[in-house]
Amino acid sequence: MKAEIIAVGTELLLGQIVNSNAQFLSVELAALGIDVYFQTVVGDNSSRLQEAIEIARSRADVILFTGGIGPTEDDLTKEALAASLRRSLHIDQLAMDHVQRFFDERKVFMTENNRKQAIIIEGTTPLANEIGLAVGLAFAEKDKYYIVLPGPPREMKPMFTDKAKPWLQQHALTNEMPIYSKMLKFAGIGESLLEDKLIDLIHSQTDPTIAPYAKEGEVTVRISTKAPSEREAMEKLTVLEEQIKAILPEHMYANIDVPLEQLIVDWMADAGLTLSAAESCTGGLLMQSITNVPGSASMFKGGIVCYSNEMKMKLLNVPSAFLEGVDAPGAVSRQVAEVLAEQVRMTADTDFGLSVTGVAGPGYSERKPVGLVFVAIAERGKATEVFELNLKGTRENIRLRSVKALLYRLWRRLEERRVATPLEGSDL
Amino acid sequence: MKAEIIAVGTELLLGQIVNSNAQFLSVELAALGIDVYFQTVVGDNSSRLQEAIEIARSRADVILFTGGIGPTEDDLTKEALAASLRRSLHIDQLAMDHVQRFFDERKVFMTENNRKQAIIIEGTTPLANEIGLAVGLAFAEKDKYYIVLPGPPREMKPMFTDKAKPWLQQHALTNEMPIYSKMLKFAGIGESLLEDKLIDLIHSQTDPTIAPYAKEGEVTVRISTKAPSEREAMEKLTVLEEQIKAILPEHMYANIDVPLEQLIVDWMADAGLTLSAAESCTGGLLMQSITNVPGSASMFKGGIVCYSNEMKMKLLNVPSAFLEGVDAPGAVSRQVAEVLAEQVRMTADTDFGLSVTGVAGPGYSERKPVGLVFVAIAERGKATEVFELNLKGTRENIRLRSVKALLYRLWRRLEERRVATPLEGSDL
Repeated sequence: MKAEIIAVGTELLLGQIVNSNAQFLSVELAALGIDVYFQTVVGDNSSRLQEAIEIARSRADVILFTGGIGPTEDDLTKEALAASLRRSLHIDQLAMDHVQRFFDERKVFMTENNRKQAIIIEGTTPLANEIGLAVGLAFAEKDKYYIVLPGPPREMKPMFTDKAKPWLQQHALTNEMPIYSKMLKFAGIGESLLEDKLIDLIHSQTDPTIAPYAKEGEVTVRISTKAPSEREAMEKLTVLEEQIKAILPEHMYANIDVPLEQLIVDWMADAGLTLSAAESCTGGLLMQSITNVPGSASMFKGGIVCYSNEMKMKLLNVPSAFLEGVDAPGAVSRQVAEVLAEQVRMTADTDFGLSVTGVAGPGYSERKPVGLVFVAIAERGKATEVFELNLKGTRENIRLRSVKALLYRLWRRLEERRVATPLEGSDL
Repeated sequence: MKAEIIAVGTELLLGQIVNSNAQFLSVELAALGIDVYFQTVVGDNSSRLQEAIEIARSRADVILFTGGIGPTEDDLTKEALAASLRRSLHIDQLAMDHVQRFFDERKVFMTENNRKQAIIIEGTTPLANEIGLAVGLAFAEKDKYYIVLPGPPREMKPMFTDKAKPWLQQHALTNEMPIYSKMLKFAGIGESLLEDKLIDLIHSQTDPTIAPYAKEGEVTVRISTKAPSEREAMEKLTVLEEQIKAILPEHMYANIDVPLEQLIVDWMADAGLTLSAAESCTGGLLMQSITNVPGSASMFKGGIVCYSNEMKMKLLNVPSAFLEGVDAPGAVSRQVAEVLAEQVRMTADTDFGLSVTGVAGPGYSERKPVGLVFVAIAERGKATEVFELNLKGTRENIRLRSVKALLYRLWRRLEERRVATPLEGSDL
């Protein structure tokens, strides 16, 4: 089955944003066994959009649209598709109620143009938008399958995964043997080193297939196979998973697509362990990534962003001798990382205390190089561990990698504990 | 003049990489006054590639190719283009010498397939590859202009900028006027309400053009015009900018593409003002977005993530009477937001203190609805302002919107100060 992805939006043609939606959908469709033959980007222009639709219909079985279904005058995707199929448009009442509720709850007047977001093409299946307002849609006509999705990735992704994908599986993929996949998650290792370690396996392996890819400082390996039943697929996948885990036992942290911080939050909550943190160069990024996980309140008590030396001394009792004077180790040092982790743990009275101090750049500080970072883990009744990192990249990369490296070290500590005292409800 | 960008590579169709080349070239072409009408991605398949070439020739004046000119069997771009134009291919001697030199310098035997990288289409201008090995090319035929570039961005970008762009300016753009744009940035207003307020202007306006779009909790309006010189363009753009600002004076914060937090950091640093923050439901997101700005160390001292009530009481002196007992206002309340902002300001001894407390969900707390958030701004010697927000969306959205809403309120406060005591080096 052949697919074409049509992304609609002049902002793409002006280069204001990159077409990450096409990448996401291409990965998802490949996993469904659908071959993407073309990706097209067209602007907010009805005639050119209809032209693109005609071409796509001539060469693809499945046509997916992203973008152009918002409230503004420029949003024309549904209108152009309806016109080229000579179908009419109408307001979907459920979608309209959803839009109206949104404004009512905020006690904000709903402007007329928002009604546009509840429009669907007659005789199609509306795809509810759980995150935003614009309703999507799915339908089949003359052996062609059409899916219309919103442009913003945070609306598009869940609508595809929760609504469009099941619709495709039910309507378009009935005769295909389904593809089953497992996501193996790795931390503390880069994509190229991971690929290097798995290269023989990747080459010798035809079924299941192995596809590594990097994503926000973590590496994921997707293993996939076609099989008549999930049970048969999982048998094949589990054998390969064990082989891969045996090659990288210290880096594979999950066999489901879960971020490392969520695994840590779940494990610590299950074990009744509590956490606090002191951040200098990461300035809150560590704590925000932990607290972004639902349920983190049960294990994370809080912490301190000690961006200035005054804050380090005042709130975390870092001795001024560590920070001031020519012979002082300085804020970016093992000694300070250690004190920060221990002091925040004591202040918050938690089982674990984390700290990060380093030079995120641009420009060195304390005559220390950009990318030099120290992270520490303090634990009640245990010796504090400090790790030195030498990172490359932009300020943002260095901050992100510092957080990921510290979370990786914490995961290793928790993993050791779990081996010593196994818990129920383990992810691995 | 209309352009189409054709990116060639199966890795794009599999979603293994994102098409960042199309974004780069779109920005470059817009700046040259060339309108990109379509971006196409096609795999390493000769017949589908020729099909894409035929379509592009029917609708564009300039066709740019990226990718598919390497040494492997899959690299077919030049071959397919030559076939569809019925032209022959030959080795370009200078390009061949460049390839040979590369291997000689490394004392590596050059395999036969590398000769492919020196191939050009007869009668075209070779574009030398300073970074890699594959030669690009440029030519005109029947009023159409063709540019062939490598796939790897680090080879493609310099080849476009140093070789293809001058070629286009000399051959294709002799009578074109360049496009000049300004990015107007807005906060504290949604895309649809903004568009609603500007709708008359958008409709009455043909030159410069107005294009609003939303991006990570901020709204940007791009105004563009073609003009013979930058001075003439800026005169036209500034008139329109003033009209737009007059309609939304309380929301337009910049006329350059700068995030709100960067503007705040720059302003406060210029004015010698300092900042601290206390975060509950946002758990560090506010501080991380501020510290993500280079130079924030000069104005941001740090703060406290008081995720638990214990931390609120212990580190920020929130009276237990506010938090405990049936009649207590609770952690999510005006009173607590106020204390948090004032206490963190005093603890960090800064000019401003910010706070956020709310219910990010999932699931209510203190019998309060998800999305109820209080943000506060404390200032030395001034009364503390508290704002109630009623937000919708995922936990992540609510956290992000809380931060954006608070930064917006802080910007308004700073804006008032600047009107009272104007500074040099203003962004607006």
